[in-house]
Amino acid sequence: MTDIRTTALKTPVDVAHYLFTRLHQMGVRSVHGVPGDYNLVALDYIDKTGLKWVGSVNELNAGYAADGYARVKGISALVTTFGVGELSAINAVAGAYSELVPVVHVVGTPSTISQRDGMLLHHTLGNGDFNVFADMNKEITCCIAKLTDPSEIASQIDHAIQQCWLQSRPVYITLPTDVVQKKIEGNRLQTPIDLSQPANNPEKEDYVVDVVLKYLLAAQRPTILVDACAIRHNVLKEVHDLIDKTGLPVFVTPMGKGAINESHPNYSGVYAGDGSQPEVKEHIEASDLILSIGAIKSDFNTAGFSYRTSQLNTIDFHSTHIVVRYSEYSGVHMRGVLRKVIDKVDLSKLSAVPSNKIENQVKQNEDSSEIITQLWFWPRVGEFLKENDIVITETGTSNFGIWETKFPKGVTAISQVLWGSIGYSVGSCQGAALAASDDGSDRRTILFVGDGSLQLTVQEISTIVRLGLKPIIFVICNEGFTIERYIHGMGAAYNDIAQWDFKDIPRVFGAKAGNSKSYQIKTKTEVNNLLDDKGFSAASVLQFVELYIPKEDAPRALKLTAEASAKTNAKE
Amino acid sequence: MTDIRTTALKTPVDVAHYLFTRLHQMGVRSVHGVPGDYNLVALDYIDKTGLKWVGSVNELNAGYAADGYARVKGISALVTTFGVGELSAINAVAGAYSELVPVVHVVGTPSTISQRDGMLLHHTLGNGDFNVFADMNKEITCCIAKLTDPSEIASQIDHAIQQCWLQSRPVYITLPTDVVQKKIEGNRLQTPIDLSQPANNPEKEDYVVDVVLKYLLAAQRPTILVDACAIRHNVLKEVHDLIDKTGLPVFVTPMGKGAINESHPNYSGVYAGDGSQPEVKEHIEASDLILSIGAIKSDFNTAGFSYRTSQLNTIDFHSTHIVVRYSEYSGVHMRGVLRKVIDKVDLSKLSAVPSNKIENQVKQNEDSSEIITQLWFWPRVGEFLKENDIVITETGTSNFGIWETKFPKGVTAISQVLWGSIGYSVGSCQGAALAASDDGSDRRTILFVGDGSLQLTVQEISTIVRLGLKPIIFVICNEGFTIERYIHGMGAAYNDIAQWDFKDIPRVFGAKAGNSKSYQIKTKTEVNNLLDDKGFSAASVLQFVELYIPKEDAPRALKLTAEASAKTNAKE
Ligand SMILES: Cc1ncc(C[n+]2csc(CCOP(=O)(O)OP(=O)(O)O)c2C)c(N)n1
Ligand SMILES: Cc1ncc(C[n+]2csc(CCOP(=O)(O)OP(=O)(O)O)c2C)c(N)n1
Ligand SMILES: [Mg+2]
Ligand SMILES: [Mg+2]
Repeated sequence: MTDIRTTALKTPVDVAHYLFTRLHQMGVRSVHGVPGDYNLVALDYIDKTGLKWVGSVNELNAGYAADGYARVKGISALVTTFGVGELSAINAVAGAYSELVPVVHVVGTPSTISQRDGMLLHHTLGNGDFNVFADMNKEITCCIAKLTDPSEIASQIDHAIQQCWLQSRPVYITLPTDVVQKKIEGNRLQTPIDLSQPANNPEKEDYVVDVVLKYLLAAQRPTILVDACAIRHNVLKEVHDLIDKTGLPVFVTPMGKGAINESHPNYSGVYAGDGSQPEVKEHIEASDLILSIGAIKSDFNTAGFSYRTSQLNTIDFHSTHIVVRYSEYSGVHMRGVLRKVIDKVDLSKLSAVPSNKIENQVKQNEDSSEIITQLWFWPRVGEFLKENDIVITETGTSNFGIWETKFPKGVTAISQVLWGSIGYSVGSCQGAALAASDDGSDRRTILFVGDGSLQLTVQEISTIVRLGLKPIIFVICNEGFTIERYIHGMGAAYNDIAQWDFKDIPRVFGAKAGNSKSYQIKTKTEVNNLLDDKGFSAASVLQFVELYIPKEDAPRALKLTAEASAKTNAKE
Repeated sequence: MTDIRTTALKTPVDVAHYLFTRLHQMGVRSVHGVPGDYNLVALDYIDKTGLKWVGSVNELNAGYAADGYARVKGISALVTTFGVGELSAINAVAGAYSELVPVVHVVGTPSTISQRDGMLLHHTLGNGDFNVFADMNKEITCCIAKLTDPSEIASQIDHAIQQCWLQSRPVYITLPTDVVQKKIEGNRLQTPIDLSQPANNPEKEDYVVDVVLKYLLAAQRPTILVDACAIRHNVLKEVHDLIDKTGLPVFVTPMGKGAINESHPNYSGVYAGDGSQPEVKEHIEASDLILSIGAIKSDFNTAGFSYRTSQLNTIDFHSTHIVVRYSEYSGVHMRGVLRKVIDKVDLSKLSAVPSNKIENQVKQNEDSSEIITQLWFWPRVGEFLKENDIVITETGTSNFGIWETKFPKGVTAISQVLWGSIGYSVGSCQGAALAASDDGSDRRTILFVGDGSLQLTVQEISTIVRLGLKPIIFVICNEGFTIERYIHGMGAAYNDIAQWDFKDIPRVFGAKAGNSKSYQIKTKTEVNNLLDDKGFSAASVLQFVELYIPKEDAPRALKLTAEASAKTNAKE
């Protein structure tokens, strides 16, 4: 059917072609999701636009994978089918919202005609209401675009992708079956989507910069504390320039891990209140000015709200506002402010006094037993890591343990410290490893997942096998939900899990002999031998490591945080 | 802390005690879910109130299991944790809504204090909004109860459970951590929740009964067609009484399968428009009066809207209204009407003429090849089934194939023909098998799941193993998404899946030698030998059968329905 508008188009392209081409322009190379009859025709466009389709084993895993992919590659795409598919993924989408990860979620829906007629179709609630699922996305995405009118579709798509990028949050796009092949203007594709950050009001920016400089110059023990939003809103260049220029000591929060090159001489450790190493805690809490960049002061990120810092000694830099002590400056993005602070700071006027260097703790944690302990393991991992590794940890002992691991340069750390949905890390591992491979890099992807969390999403290993990815997967086998035991029910049966036969997991999920290796590791010596093994370290096949740590062993920071959580839960 | 209200209580009980005791009174014996720190304290009450905790491997599976449990046991309970847990289960809850299954979903939330203070807790969106997830449940549950004020909690719980039962839909209850142990009046527990259906207005009911009788007596070829809502709203006793009294032929729709005792002499087959056996189609479509009981005329339930029946020859019985030809009678429940029709119908005045008996088709489908075909397999299954079996099928070839299987008496059929979320059947199998076991019965649970669908939820087999359940699981191995191939992309790579090593699945998920058996079945002879084997049939351990059927083979009804779906999707 050619209508008048179609014939007026200069370069008519199909809607699906337009959408996937835009995603390709953004750097997406692989599209995650699960097929369904409301998206099948759209999937035909993926190959044609130079993308690859990654059919995951289910939508939640696909959503987690898209999240992991975006954290490595900058942005990602997820395609699901109406109702059943999108709702299966909604926890992953909410997680991406909470954790500020830009995922473009495209949902194939029934045709506009079927919707108009309120047809009693499969995957509906049986009541003719086709808006329920889109409405559920209102508060967990930063933009909803329902593609129906061809004359608006191109700008809807561009706007959604732009917002996804700028706000670093998921967006939700519905693509009805009868819209997939509608023609729209393809000429627009010649002009890239405008991704530039709106500039700050220069007068206001200068004002804030002056205030910041005033406090910075006066402070005797200023420090920099880098958190998640510095990564998500991409000011790491500014942060490093600031450190290099001023020579100030820099710390990260748990969610900020990976933001700073930890081989940098000024890197001083992980600050999370009482969960920090004593010298770190002491240093930060004695500081008379904390330049806090991109903070998300959530319970798990602060070891149970245990910061002992004062807002009177703090300047908070955010993507939407700056707070100097108690003065708030709204509508100012930290990037512009940081850049001007770097440019303007007069080093000769800094009052900062030199401070002691803080060292990685690995040597102190040796004990004579062969039992693998959390205390010993995590610093040991630091010696194993290489530059540019991608390190993924799961809610549980691993994402607290990793605080004690010192990273080489360029390591990307992935974890859901705020959203904390277990099982996330396995899907994310697939996405992150694929992103590295799509970049043509040989970065290793290393996952640490609890035996409890692995249960939720284990079959994503099938996708890892299918794609030929080669992550190293460490499963921390400690007979169940150790983190939960510390919150409530140390010996409760509900914190136990079934004992699986881990070593055959890759094989059951399709790995052929020679394409994967499994290891059972029960002693410190075995850990050392494994981590020192060149073949293992080369990561040339999928490697699956069962690592046994006692049930009631947990990182110190986890114990503190769990205790604080239990108290918060019970408070009257 | 004792406050004035607590001391005034006659029999103070904790909120969680009250809630779980009510669930026990409803017949729930096992509670499904996954622990999380916002529900842990509540879980301590499960044992104490005579219930069992079933920790599933993830929340979606737990939700599916709760759905299956409710379909066998009448009602079920699901406990998840705020945000991450509940959203993981939301697709299962929406499915229960769509398919009218009564599931009580209890979500452990942060304490009322934390919510009031907008604390930046894990599992939140980071914006202090604690209502987002509850709001998402508004259109997919029939009642939301947020438990906060002790003086209202008992009636909120009672009301929610009552609505769950009466409307046969899920309900959503939030239980904040600081409310779990608040004291409320326990005396109320002596009085059971009122589950009686409000009576119809007697004058209106009589009026409708007379209209129905008028058409019934006049019809020459009246038939009864039984659909899903007859099962969900529990009028099967009335339906059987009607058949027994009038001797009319009775048919079921795909979603109505299991509603009627198929050994009953009047049982005549499955009607689904063009998807029916020819004699069935002919019979129904030549009928001059169809008593349609509890219809859900969805696409997959009608083989793509292919009914060739007229509303002028139809009386629709529903739980909320009756439609006679085009006359609508709202606010009238079918149960009362059916009962009076049975009581009042004067058999001597029926004009109905006797009709031919329709037979099961198994013998006609023999062919000489050893390849297992869909055409041959499903009638063969009918010979294998026993009275009271529970038969679960998955969206795909199996839930179309099962139309061709004749059931012995008392078989319960479980499938999601309307919602159609793949992976459902595996979780549901756990719940259904457990419900049978909780009833102390030795009913067999038999699952037919596609290789594609199994991928989504396979690890629920771990829970099946852990609970010592003994379902028979048939995996239809046909190299991927056959149903999707018929809708679009017959040879498309996105309809392929990874090849798993199925036989070791039970073992990997914890089955010990002797506690499970695996079979690879590739020929008709192997099928026959297996199904005839007494040991297999006895179902005394978990049995896992890989059943190979060619990739492009599908039941006839599926092909028709898929073609219709593709057309509906493309219609402009
Ligand atoms: C989807 C989801 N369900 C439930 C929870 C609650 N939860 C948080 S941590 C955890 C246990 C994790 O156990 P495991 O992975 O074994 O970690 P470890 O033993 O190392 O602490 C659970 C059940 C959650 N965070 N997310
Ligand atoms: C949660 C969910 N995701 C995606 C779909 C779309 N879908 C419907 S059927 C199907 C394929 C089922 O394949 P399989 O179980 O192998 O069935 P068969 O080959 O027997 O047809 C898919 C992907 C769905 N219905 N539900
Ligand atoms: Mg564990
Ligand atoms: Mg299949």
